[in-house]
Amino acid sequence: VTFRAIFVPDELAEAVDDRAWLEAMLDVERALANAEALAGVIPADAAAAIAAACDADRYDVHALAVQGRAAGNPAEPLVRALRREAGPDGADWVHWGATSQDVVDTAAMLVSRRALASAIDAGERLAAAAAALARRHRDAPIAGRTLLQQAVPTTFGAKAAGWLVAAVEARRTLLDANGRLALQLGGAVGTLAPLGEQGPAVAEQVAATLGLELPPVPWHGDRTRVAALGAALATAAGAAAKIALDVALLQQSEVGEVRDPGGGGSSTMPQKQNPVATAVAVACAREAAASAGILFAGLVGEHERAAGAWHAEWDALSRALAAAGGALDAVAALLERLEVDTGRMRANLQPQLVSERLAFALTRTLGREQAHALLQEAARAPSLADALRGRLPEEELAELLDPTGYLGSAGAFVDRALAFYEEAT
Amino acid sequence: VTFRAIFVPDELAEAVDDRAWLEAMLDVERALANAEALAGVIPADAAAAIAAACDADRYDVHALAVQGRAAGNPAEPLVRALRREAGPDGADWVHWGATSQDVVDTAAMLVSRRALASAIDAGERLAAAAAALARRHRDAPIAGRTLLQQAVPTTFGAKAAGWLVAAVEARRTLLDANGRLALQLGGAVGTLAPLGEQGPAVAEQVAATLGLELPPVPWHGDRTRVAALGAALATAAGAAAKIALDVALLQQSEVGEVRDPGGGGSSTMPQKQNPVATAVAVACAREAAASAGILFAGLVGEHERAAGAWHAEWDALSRALAAAGGALDAVAALLERLEVDTGRMRANLQPQLVSERLAFALTRTLGREQAHALLQEAARAPSLADALRGRLPEEELAELLDPTGYLGSAGAFVDRALAFYEEAT
Amino acid sequence: VTFRAIFVPDELAEAVDDRAWLEAMLDVERALANAEALAGVIPADAAAAIAAACDADRYDVHALAVQGRAAGNPAEPLVRALRREAGPDGADWVHWGATSQDVVDTAAMLVSRRALASAIDAGERLAAAAAALARRHRDAPIAGRTLLQQAVPTTFGAKAAGWLVAAVEARRTLLDANGRLALQLGGAVGTLAPLGEQGPAVAEQVAATLGLELPPVPWHGDRTRVAALGAALATAAGAAAKIALDVALLQQSEVGEVRDPGGGGSSTMPQKQNPVATAVAVACAREAAASAGILFAGLVGEHERAAGAWHAEWDALSRALAAAGGALDAVAALLERLEVDTGRMRANLQPQLVSERLAFALTRTLGREQAHALLQEAARAPSLADALRGRLPEEELAELLDPTGYLGSAGAFVDRALAFYEEAT
Amino acid sequence: VTFRAIFVPDELAEAVDDRAWLEAMLDVERALANAEALAGVIPADAAAAIAAACDADRYDVHALAVQGRAAGNPAEPLVRALRREAGPDGADWVHWGATSQDVVDTAAMLVSRRALASAIDAGERLAAAAAALARRHRDAPIAGRTLLQQAVPTTFGAKAAGWLVAAVEARRTLLDANGRLALQLGGAVGTLAPLGEQGPAVAEQVAATLGLELPPVPWHGDRTRVAALGAALATAAGAAAKIALDVALLQQSEVGEVRDPGGGGSSTMPQKQNPVATAVAVACAREAAASAGILFAGLVGEHERAAGAWHAEWDALSRALAAAGGALDAVAALLERLEVDTGRMRANLQPQLVSERLAFALTRTLGREQAHALLQEAARAPSLADALRGRLPEEELAELLDPTGYLGSAGAFVDRALAFYEEAT
Repeated sequence: VTFRAIFVPDELAEAVDDRAWLEAMLDVERALANAEALAGVIPADAAAAIAAACDADRYDVHALAVQGRAAGNPAEPLVRALRREAGPDGADWVHWGATSQDVVDTAAMLVSRRALASAIDAGERLAAAAAALARRHRDAPIAGRTLLQQAVPTTFGAKAAGWLVAAVEARRTLLDANGRLALQLGGAVGTLAPLGEQGPAVAEQVAATLGLELPPVPWHGDRTRVAALGAALATAAGAAAKIALDVALLQQSEVGEVRDPGGGGSSTMPQKQNPVATAVAVACAREAAASAGILFAGLVGEHERAAGAWHAEWDALSRALAAAGGALDAVAALLERLEVDTGRMRANLQPQLVSERLAFALTRTLGREQAHALLQEAARAPSLADALRGRLPEEELAELLDPTGYLGSAGAFVDRALAFYEEAT
Repeated sequence: VTFRAIFVPDELAEAVDDRAWLEAMLDVERALANAEALAGVIPADAAAAIAAACDADRYDVHALAVQGRAAGNPAEPLVRALRREAGPDGADWVHWGATSQDVVDTAAMLVSRRALASAIDAGERLAAAAAALARRHRDAPIAGRTLLQQAVPTTFGAKAAGWLVAAVEARRTLLDANGRLALQLGGAVGTLAPLGEQGPAVAEQVAATLGLELPPVPWHGDRTRVAALGAALATAAGAAAKIALDVALLQQSEVGEVRDPGGGGSSTMPQKQNPVATAVAVACAREAAASAGILFAGLVGEHERAAGAWHAEWDALSRALAAAGGALDAVAALLERLEVDTGRMRANLQPQLVSERLAFALTRTLGREQAHALLQEAARAPSLADALRGRLPEEELAELLDPTGYLGSAGAFVDRALAFYEEAT
Repeated sequence: VTFRAIFVPDELAEAVDDRAWLEAMLDVERALANAEALAGVIPADAAAAIAAACDADRYDVHALAVQGRAAGNPAEPLVRALRREAGPDGADWVHWGATSQDVVDTAAMLVSRRALASAIDAGERLAAAAAALARRHRDAPIAGRTLLQQAVPTTFGAKAAGWLVAAVEARRTLLDANGRLALQLGGAVGTLAPLGEQGPAVAEQVAATLGLELPPVPWHGDRTRVAALGAALATAAGAAAKIALDVALLQQSEVGEVRDPGGGGSSTMPQKQNPVATAVAVACAREAAASAGILFAGLVGEHERAAGAWHAEWDALSRALAAAGGALDAVAALLERLEVDTGRMRANLQPQLVSERLAFALTRTLGREQAHALLQEAARAPSLADALRGRLPEEELAELLDPTGYLGSAGAFVDRALAFYEEAT
Repeated sequence: VTFRAIFVPDELAEAVDDRAWLEAMLDVERALANAEALAGVIPADAAAAIAAACDADRYDVHALAVQGRAAGNPAEPLVRALRREAGPDGADWVHWGATSQDVVDTAAMLVSRRALASAIDAGERLAAAAAALARRHRDAPIAGRTLLQQAVPTTFGAKAAGWLVAAVEARRTLLDANGRLALQLGGAVGTLAPLGEQGPAVAEQVAATLGLELPPVPWHGDRTRVAALGAALATAAGAAAKIALDVALLQQSEVGEVRDPGGGGSSTMPQKQNPVATAVAVACAREAAASAGILFAGLVGEHERAAGAWHAEWDALSRALAAAGGALDAVAALLERLEVDTGRMRANLQPQLVSERLAFALTRTLGREQAHALLQEAARAPSLADALRGRLPEEELAELLDPTGYLGSAGAFVDRALAFYEEAT
């Protein structure tokens, strides 16, 4: 909890905590009882009694968890408690025809939906903030950096446009995953035998009540849905963390091109403004990716319910949801408040940034290889301009040495990214 | 190579090997030169000279790789070799405006397309084979097993229907990934500066030539596309491995419900028929998931090109492609030749499989808890039937004890899965 | 919490929970103040005031965590709270010369020590239980199974001996990791500048007080220690889970050679005795391995403190500790109570188990290849004995067909494993 | 191969390639035959014939691999080929009593030993180079940087000392792993039944011949040894990559404190000197960690030989060996040739680096909080010195503002690290 609180906003942390799982499991039991009553499988007053008992305040989450050890899952003790609470009318009809996995898997979908809503919202804020930066700084020159070395010039707008497209993709992948959240209802091994002929009808009703997709067949043994969810979360968290890493690199003491006014202070170093949002986003991305790995491994389970592969999913999924949402939220807030110093960006442009361009110009007279060699040497000279004097007409040289004249399609790409964003929202 | 040959069919191994990467990189250089000539950026005869030089037979892959150490990527030495081969007309115009990452990333997409074609084909075979099993054995009873214990009866058809839906999902996720393969063309940092105003036009032409999606902006810093590809491959491999694991469990000496006639022999134990396809698929799934993890981590890279995160992608992607295809191919072949022993399935059904059903019946007279307790005890008795004699009318008891009468919606689910499959193809 | 409670005993869960981290951080601050007072760096009454304030009951863990968001770690808000609690005498000397990482890293070591004690204890119980099984069933024949097929006979003792050696290794690796828990004390960047000349002396004293190794230099940037700890935990959890998987396979309905009397019940299937310990151990092993992956990635951090890599460690380490301990505890208890059915083991031995042995015998007369071919065919015949009649003298054949006569060095290996165990403890 | 050649030196790549595995497997078969002849288990002339056939040049690695598909491992086809080559004298005695896993596992140990020798050597070079840097620049001031922000001063010597200790730890973990390489010899399921009473004696002889540890019992089901090896490789690679990342950060265009004269050039940007060694090391670290994850997962395998978990180990182990060695080699060479610009280090020191120290001084007169607040403001002022004028006596202020006077125990820690290194070698 301590650590999760550092990385994840309260709202999101609550969306995946014990109470949220308990509520989700109760939502499943209630929807099931109601659907069964509607189908005439259980008495209507049993359903009413069960629905009344499906009140999270009546249960002690921790006690249930401790009891869950014996059965190896939290649904089994909950069902027992629910039977007690449902009274004589409801007790025998609680959880009718369902199995623990039905409850836990469907609850996982409900928990995911709630947490995804928050993450998707953060993804939208992130995209909007990136779009604003791309628009505002469309033409502000900045050094393009590859392998951490200045390469050729680009614009901060183009950089933000790259972030924007990634943010849109991140959001899209979460929306896709959200659209695939599906009911699990199969009974002990996926036949819904206790429901006789009514299985499919009851399942359809439960799915409708809970607002979940009705899958073609129960997916107790087919975890592709869960793996895809984990992958989406890891992707979104990673996309956010990439932006955050760029910001921290731009904010380095020696670079200073952006500044996070919400950076974290130090208890002993008064000057420090730490890129805490980056630390949070990077940590969350690692967490989400590790969790996705557990979910991938969970694909390979034994028969109708795996002994361990399934059990490993619960906490991994909760963590991936929290981490992805935490990363997106932290980076959205970071971009929203980011201070951009375009003067410093321009001042940081090194003359050598135009070497590629000079090489093209000099190739005409010297040939490619000699031009390249000359520029390699010139790059180490005290003054690039001096080292090239006489090699090209003065005026042309002056023009070629201006990095802001070598921005290619940077502006066009910003416009394309913004159009892509508009279209996607 | 030794190990890859064991797990991956030749065709697929070749689709991701050194030669394939070389050819793909040359395809990129050729398409680029042609597009640039069309746009008037480079002379037409330069493009012709370059195209002629883009012949994989002229290059020594290993020598290029060794030279690649200095630059840290395989494109840089290839470009130098290509300049030599392109002669005076072409040399200076080779790779014009592009950067190494453009070539490697786009080549990665071409390599992926080739390997995905093979994997998707295997996925189709897998789905077809699962569908055939589901159809043929729609109503054959088999023990449903959870946590490796017999639970309640189901049908082998329903089991295969679960495999089928997972196979369809696996194929769909690969198709989605295939549809997102996109051109990378941005030059050194994504501005396409050397192409002046022609950047977007050239990019559009190259994308069209290579049959790749034209992305809104270069994605050198946005690896969501690569991560999604890795996730799809890990998911597909895992889905295949799950089926293979089920088969190996059903084929255990003590279970014997299916038999892989293509099982591997042992050099010393003549009786052995090892579930080699399972070993292959499980190993491939682990490989693919581990590779996906590398690709997720690759999302978080520095600025316009990462120092290491990007480099780690190449081999991880190749492996994920090979592993996913290898898993799907192995399991498709496995299901295609699988011998199913429905007699043994029926013989293996334990009387206790109907305990759930008996509990429901006994609950009417004994109440839930007492019924449960009685059956727990009866489950340990030498004969379940004897232990229950007198508790229910003889005729009803006999009927309830017949596991084949407790199959619920198994058949309906088979039909739904087959319909889902038909629709998806 | 819900899920952790299912997998991890209370004692262990508490050893890594928020309160445990809080107490550990306070232990560090107290020890630091005392050591600094001893060295004359801070006033003695300041140390006394600080020590008095280092009382976990005075702090609200959740509030601290929420405040920790701003700084990105839990130590910074704790230091501020501690200053308030330490009063005018102590406030200015709290945390003197230290940095947040000193407190969190050293607290991580203290938390690890407490959790490792529990895990090591479970590892000892696991080894003892495996040793007891190996000793008791030294000569009980059981089918050796490779790739899930019966291969040649072995003994349950030899199987347990394999578990035993792995358990001893698991425990050893935890002991090694425990022996490397070290003080972190370097101040902001590892120079201990605020302590002037007294840095090393203070560090030595703090290490002694806390019972931690004094490292040659601060290890803020060298995470090999943390990675090694994660690796040990993943290894131990995996070793335990392997044993648990074997048990679940032996307990399959169709095999029935062992039985876990503490198996988990099902709410609807009265006959079920689920291998819950296996599910727990397997889930824990996956969790521990995923956490170790985060710790490996954490090796590669920026400069004197990483932005994210470090932050990802805390929860991953807590989880790995809990998961490893949880796996070891679950499997120790499983082996301690395991019911072994040697009769069923013997009854399950298939005649074909001796095919290898028969092949050796028949090779003498038929040559290797023909013998092999004959036995492959015989393995499919209704009766192996009948199929071979006449190929070997009746008496020899009868002897060769007895699987219990083909146990090789199984007994000797049991003895060696027990001796290895005795030596290691 | 292409990619491996970029990341791994030839010598190391060869140590884990197909040919190396083939030779190692043949070494095992030869040693086994000889030991069995010595023990009188097989005829002496059979052993001689087998030894003669154990010549790698006689076999086609690729053909064997393709044949290996049927059995799922490379040893089975090799044994068949070896029987052909061993002639009538040897054929029937080839591989006597052994199983494929014996050959592959023991060969894995031999391959590991060869690759580890190379990696350990690189680790020694890395430590030596780090030691040289620490010694040479013991007192050269540099900004200490946390979360990518300048924090307080340290020395480049202290930074290198941190690298040194990590390099020593990396080497030590590899040496430990090397010391645990052990013979695998158990026959089909670990009983060595075909060897009758001679099993242990033969095993002892084979271990002695191959120079491997003799384990207490066969470890076919206990993969702790393999997991520990993977963990050591991932740790060593990560430790190397951390150093490489620091170098790339110090080499950034805007920082320029070190320069890799062997940096990689760009084909289009003549000025570029890319930190290729960093890219290589980081990529290798990710590869090694991912492979270690596969090996951890491999701990949890079924019975006497796992169906897939085992098979996934081979390539993962080869890759981890290559990647760890590749990372260590690249970073050793990097440090050996690194150009250090202590002038630039000093010039980059920002005045605010002494804020912590000023805070201590001002606390005496202003109290902690006010001092902190004053310095936060001063940190944003154009001149820190001006902002503080009058707050402290001029002379004291001047002294406090000198970052080179605030190095604490940096020098002492360098000395300790060097002593630790001397002791470890």
